[in-house]
Parts: sequence; structure tokens; C-alpha cells
Amino acid sequence: MVLHYPNGRAYHQSVSDKMQPKRQHENSDIVFGNRGMSLEEELNQSNTYYLQKDIAVIHKKPVPIQIVQVSYPKRSAAVIKEAYFKQSSTTDYNGVYKGYYLDFEAKETRSKTSFPLSNFHEHQVNHMKACTRQGGICFTIIKFSVTQQLFLLPAAILFEYWDNQSKTKGRKSIEKKVIADFGYAINYHVQPLIPYLTYVDKLINK
Amino acid sequence: MVLHYPNGRAYHQSVSDKMQPKRQHENSDIVFGNRGMSLEEELNQSNTYYLQKDIAVIHKKPVPIQIVQVSYPKRSAAVIKEAYFKQSSTTDYNGVYKGYYLDFEAKETRSKTSFPLSNFHEHQVNHMKACTRQGGICFTIIKFSVTQQLFLLPAAILFEYWDNQSKTKGRKSIEKKVIADFGYAINYHVQPLIPYLTYVDKLINK
Ligand SMILES: [Mg+2]
Ligand SMILES: [Mg+2]
Repeated sequence: MVLHYPNGRAYHQSVSDKMQPKRQHENSDIVFGNRGMSLEEELNQSNTYYLQKDIAVIHKKPVPIQIVQVSYPKRSAAVIKEAYFKQSSTTDYNGVYKGYYLDFEAKETRSKTSFPLSNFHEHQVNHMKACTRQGGICFTIIKFSVTQQLFLLPAAILFEYWDNQSKTKGRKSIEKKVIADFGYAINYHVQPLIPYLTYVDKLINK
Repeated sequence: MVLHYPNGRAYHQSVSDKMQPKRQHENSDIVFGNRGMSLEEELNQSNTYYLQKDIAVIHKKPVPIQIVQVSYPKRSAAVIKEAYFKQSSTTDYNGVYKGYYLDFEAKETRSKTSFPLSNFHEHQVNHMKACTRQGGICFTIIKFSVTQQLFLLPAAILFEYWDNQSKTKGRKSIEKKVIADFGYAINYHVQPLIPYLTYVDKLINK
């Protein structure tokens, strides 16, 4: 079942991910042919690996829900009967790695040549700016789903494009070339599936 | 309306907190007599202050929900029709302050003399241990609700009592005296209501 957010994007049942037993990828075939997996699932799996190996503690934040009605059946769990999806005021993922606070968004696009800034909400960008001012390490993991290319884009580049877009002739997207030049291409790996902390190390050592 | 988690604890509608307009405490009378406010509401308000003043970026994590059924009425927002509360695998709050990753639980108890360890789940303690190993600053903010006393208890003390409880004669609670001696008493303040970062500074400088 594919659920949809009010904005029409697929929902992938990520909210319930944590309820399920941790999936292990014994079958490495999946790694290079995982076209059915969402970026979020791929990252959750990578974070489980990092957690189990005591490398980092990074979690997907639960989707915020506005609860309106709950019923309390006798002898069984409370059931939420009416609730709505809310827009998150922060980003998808945060946590701690080598003493650093990490905060990032995961974004997939079907565009082939550039990453549309409309993928971000103002409050997400403002949240990353605030975290950056506090010394946090912020970035976006972008997946070009048609070509299955992955990049880690430092927040500074996003901020520059974001702040420029309202100007005359300001671009509404970041060219893939810019992302490749100022960010880091990430190749899919076995364990973890998306070895993004390797590139966070580069951000730290910059 | 007071909702209840499946475990019977009051729910305080915290999930929907962020939907409401940010409350400002113009009336400082409330500060010393806020008996109706949950610790979580008090902390959310304090975090809003810290965020607005660019002092720290700390957020309450949304309560994780297992969604079972969603309906999509035409021309209006998706409605969650069946969902369940899940146990969180992490803690209540995390974020970044002066380059440090902060991670903490907020706990209220009606006990007058000690803080029962049964207020914690194993996975919450394990999460704080993992974050501590990564260099994060972890603690609990404990409110003795009968006397309205607040303390910040460093995670190391919790870990010690937690690991000892299964031993013969291991205590199942932490005496208030220990909390006062090894933690920090926090007095309610005006802005922010709970100035806990003042005591985080002491943890950092230790
Ligand atoms: Mg995302
Ligand atoms: Mg709590």
C-alpha cells in the first residue's frame, strides 16, 4: 500500500518503519538493484548499520501528526480514529557523530539535470541555518532517481541558491553540475548501503 | 481533554502542540503558579525562547505513530482513520547548542522522596548511552510535581543506578538527595521558563 501525503507525494509508510524488525541485508544483490526502495528506506537501513556498529546515532524523526480523536477500547491499545499529517518544522534526520551534531534532509527528484528548490520549505531551510549557527553540520542527501545518482550537498550551497532565488534572474534550482562540483557523489555500498558519513568526515576536516 | 497512552500515562496532547500558535508568556504571574502546565509544555515553551533568541535549536520529537488506514477525501486533507501509538526508540528532546549535541528525557514524578527507574525504558537508556559514546551531552530533566521541584540529572548518574538495579539490593529508584547532590536544581524563571541550558553549561565545563 502506498499512502500519500496531502501534497500528493508518496508516503512509503515510513512512520511505521520502526515497528518492524530491523531488516538485515544479507543479500547484497539488493544493493545495486534496489530500485523499489525509497531514499528514506535506504537511509534508515544505513543508520541502523551505523547504530549497531556504534559509529553514529542518527534517527529519522517521526512524521508529526495532529491527533483529533482517540478511542480507548477495553483491554486493548488506544486507537487513533482521526488525525492529520502536519508539516514538519524541522528536517528528516538528526543525531550525533564523533561529537558533532548532524542534521539533514533527504530529497529525491525525478529531474535529470537539476534539483528544484521547490523541494524545500522555507522553515526547513531556516532550521538548517539555525543549526549551522549553533555549530551543527547540515546537508542534504539528494537522489536523482532516474539515474540512481546520490550526492551529499553541504548546506552552505543550498543557502546560497535559496537566498538568491528571489532575486532577478535568480535560479529556482541547483544544476546537477554544481551539486557534483561543490558536493560529494556517494556510491551505493554494501554495508552501509549509503556510506554518507565518509563524506561528512570530509565536511568536518574542511 | 486529557488523552492517555496505552500505558495509562497522561498524554497532554503534546503531539498537537506545534500546530498551535506559539504561546508567549507576557503574564509572568503564570511562571510561579503554572501548576496546570505539563513539564513538556514548559520545556517546549523554553525551547521556543531559546530558538527565537538564537541560543539553541532543541525540539521535542513527534510521538511515533503506526498508521494503518488513511482516507483521501476529495478537495481536502488526507485523514488518518486508524493508527496506534508506538513506543519511541529514543528520547523526548534533542538538538544542538554551542556545537554540542544535546539529548534528553523529560520526566515527571509524583513521588516525593525518590525518582523511580521504572519511568525509563531500556531502549531510552541504551539510546542515551550510545549518544554519550558519540560525545553527545545527555541528561534527564526531572520534575517532582508535588513540590514543583526541577532537577537536571546528568546521564552518568542514571546509567549507574540503571545498571545497578538488577543486582542484589540494587535500588529501583534514585533518591532525591542523590539527584540534588549530583544533579542541578533548576529554579523556574521568566524567560525562559526553565533555564536548563545554564546547567548544561556546567556539564560542558566540567
Ligand atoms: Mg525528505
Ligand atoms: Mg518524557
